[in-house]
Amino acid sequence: MKPHLPELATAVEAAAVVVSAISGMVSAARARMDLVGTFTLALVTAFGGGTLRDVLLQRRPLFWVSNEGYVFLTLLLCLAFVYSRRAFEFADALDRHASFVDALGLALFTLTGVHYAHEAGLPGLPAALLGVITGTFGGVLRDVLIREIPAIFRPGALYAVPSFVGCWVVLSGPWLEIPQPIADAAGFTTIVLLRMASVRLGLRLPAPHWAGKPEP
Amino acid sequence: MKPHLPELATAVEAAAVVVSAISGMVSAARARMDLVGTFTLALVTAFGGGTLRDVLLQRRPLFWVSNEGYVFLTLLLCLAFVYSRRAFEFADALDRHASFVDALGLALFTLTGVHYAHEAGLPGLPAALLGVITGTFGGVLRDVLIREIPAIFRPGALYAVPSFVGCWVVLSGPWLEIPQPIADAAGFTTIVLLRMASVRLGLRLPAPHWAGKPEP
Amino acid sequence: MKPHLPELATAVEAAAVVVSAISGMVSAARARMDLVGTFTLALVTAFGGGTLRDVLLQRRPLFWVSNEGYVFLTLLLCLAFVYSRRAFEFADALDRHASFVDALGLALFTLTGVHYAHEAGLPGLPAALLGVITGTFGGVLRDVLIREIPAIFRPGALYAVPSFVGCWVVLSGPWLEIPQPIADAAGFTTIVLLRMASVRLGLRLPAPHWAGKPEP
Repeated sequence: MKPHLPELATAVEAAAVVVSAISGMVSAARARMDLVGTFTLALVTAFGGGTLRDVLLQRRPLFWVSNEGYVFLTLLLCLAFVYSRRAFEFADALDRHASFVDALGLALFTLTGVHYAHEAGLPGLPAALLGVITGTFGGVLRDVLIREIPAIFRPGALYAVPSFVGCWVVLSGPWLEIPQPIADAAGFTTIVLLRMASVRLGLRLPAPHWAGKPEP
Repeated sequence: MKPHLPELATAVEAAAVVVSAISGMVSAARARMDLVGTFTLALVTAFGGGTLRDVLLQRRPLFWVSNEGYVFLTLLLCLAFVYSRRAFEFADALDRHASFVDALGLALFTLTGVHYAHEAGLPGLPAALLGVITGTFGGVLRDVLIREIPAIFRPGALYAVPSFVGCWVVLSGPWLEIPQPIADAAGFTTIVLLRMASVRLGLRLPAPHWAGKPEP
Repeated sequence: MKPHLPELATAVEAAAVVVSAISGMVSAARARMDLVGTFTLALVTAFGGGTLRDVLLQRRPLFWVSNEGYVFLTLLLCLAFVYSRRAFEFADALDRHASFVDALGLALFTLTGVHYAHEAGLPGLPAALLGVITGTFGGVLRDVLIREIPAIFRPGALYAVPSFVGCWVVLSGPWLEIPQPIADAAGFTTIVLLRMASVRLGLRLPAPHWAGKPEP
């Protein structure tokens, strides 16, 4: 994605960082944390997935080192969020209606993960896992830190599955001899559409055979 | 171990991956997770220790990248486990009686950790720690993700200790001028025997002086 | 710090490792863990921050590999702590009055993080974050493993903020053309003073606008 439409990708990436950071900030406010906790959760949510991707693939500089502006932006957002009730209410309302931007962010982070993994020579299934990890790990880390069962482990709208399916669409480019920009666009669209279909229309995985039984 | 008896080691490794993955899947089923949570816990349990080992030692490709077949196998196992009650019951029964295979897996993962650490030039105590980390970290991560106190932190059968003792047996090879395959076999056997002695015969560490007092 | 006053720095570092390890051991005793849990928490608390720093900056050998003596010392301390009531009571009392040594440790670990990050070419804000991560991550990991909300996320005395402010003092050396040893000493002193002012005099960040409201 990045090399083909760099300006658009950068705009989507910045939006994705902001939306992820706000989701961390809202979690921090709910847990009545202070500025330090809020900034930490914002950083973890926005940069956790990309950092784990870079560590696993040995890419340096890290995502948030070469994009120093994102860290600075996150800090400014946190200061406003923690000390201005108006900014907080704005961010909170945004978070409630951010599912579309969030889906764009999931798609974009996933695409960076699967692309870098493919570049590093990973075969299909591990590359797809890297894509999913990049798209979802920030949220998992956020939930572990506030001691909630990570959302990815609870029933609800699909998150990892759209990311996983989109990875295979992206990876099918070379196999089907489709030009990569088209495969990328198709993968991106697949992730956003599947995610929104799950949020809006209730698309779900088939339930496990143990569904509905009480926990032992 | 690996270079000396490659076929046997591969068979034990595959068995160890399957047993670890099943232990993650059973935890996921107990917490009433869906396919995504089950697959994630299976991956984390089976590949967490080896991944941390590879990150700490800067080894690439990662364990689950060069063994793509293990990931694929784990995915198939999860699909069967989540959607077929018969497969679930089989895996659950296996998990209840897997302590011997689990001990083989602990021994094998430990040996890979201590070997790679030794190759990378780590001195004895850090190399032994790497062995223990490789053998135990997957289970720790599984328990943190489902918000349980990791088993390694609860009273019960020894897990880290057999791994630690076995590492020193392996590392004693060069010091005692024993051929390495023999030291490896002795370390492997030590881990399995100590672990089984703890599970079956109740072998334990001496209790801390605070044992038996209620938590404050 | 290290290259300028190596003997003093080594003495402070050893003290910092011991104080961090004891803090992990006391947490383990409170949770009624055994030797394995106690040693694990001690290692995680004392070496977690430096390890994450080394992984993020791709520094090898790891902190606790090139300082094998620290791991050995931690193991001896744990054995004494777990099996000797007298040693336990001594360590517990030390832990209650360790806030000054703890502040020295926070300052020293922070300085290693910001220095190595600066050496690796990181710009200011990411370098300061690396400093804070190095100073605080061990305690975060300790609290996650015993399933407490990490102290850094709870109201109370400042911990991350002194570390962050001190990083900027250190980093201001080159910008203000102050000799680096002086900037280092000023940063070190800033961290210790801010931390002690928070512990003893109640210095706090301004409260968020949501402070005092019950959790939803």
